[in-house]
Amino acid sequence: MTELVNEKCEACRRDSPKVTNEEVAQLHPAVPEWEIVEEAEIPKLRRVFRYPDFAASLTFTDAVGALAEEQGHHPRIVTEWGSVTVTWWTHKIRNLHRNDFVMAAKTDQLYQPEA
Amino acid sequence: MTELVNEKCEACRRDSPKVTNEEVAQLHPAVPEWEIVEEAEIPKLRRVFRYPDFAASLTFTDAVGALAEEQGHHPRIVTEWGSVTVTWWTHKIRNLHRNDFVMAAKTDQLYQPEA
Repeated sequence: MTELVNEKCEACRRDSPKVTNEEVAQLHPAVPEWEIVEEAEIPKLRRVFRYPDFAASLTFTDAVGALAEEQGHHPRIVTEWGSVTVTWWTHKIRNLHRNDFVMAAKTDQLYQPEA
Repeated sequence: MTELVNEKCEACRRDSPKVTNEEVAQLHPAVPEWEIVEEAEIPKLRRVFRYPDFAASLTFTDAVGALAEEQGHHPRIVTEWGSVTVTWWTHKIRNLHRNDFVMAAKTDQLYQPEA
């Protein structure tokens, strides 16, 4: 987990390798709160972060957005009263890349649930 | 349109009236870019706003979030590279209220598409 968190997103091209099943088996336990979901046959990492109201949700959205800009890799963020749902995948390869697991770990690190 | 934009959201209770079909027929033309969609039998107003990148999307998300806090009525906001999808409905009545059309009009007013 700490290792993933400290990695930097690498530039991704259309021919970049998707994660293999073996890599998923190795990487997923480092971000166990993330579910692997399929949307239109594209596997993605998704986690719902709970917050007590809308303002707290939006603050987290901004933090994840700043991280995304810094790393040059961008998620889908659904901001609602009480929750933020973050989804990572790699558009260029229409699949999961190691970067997505790195970003999931970094997103976890930003999460500060309120009482 | 100008009239809706200038209305303030009114406090909503569980027994607040949902919009009637006649009101929808009257209000929808004021926010013609918004689609009425059903999710789990709840009608909602939804519009996709296009932006050239993630940072511009996030700026719009923040503006809509500030409006929501100001008016005390909160949407779902999906922030992605290139677009922000805003959905308004009234949780308490599991339906559309006049407030949602007011908020849609105010959201339109915030939209400044970039070149």
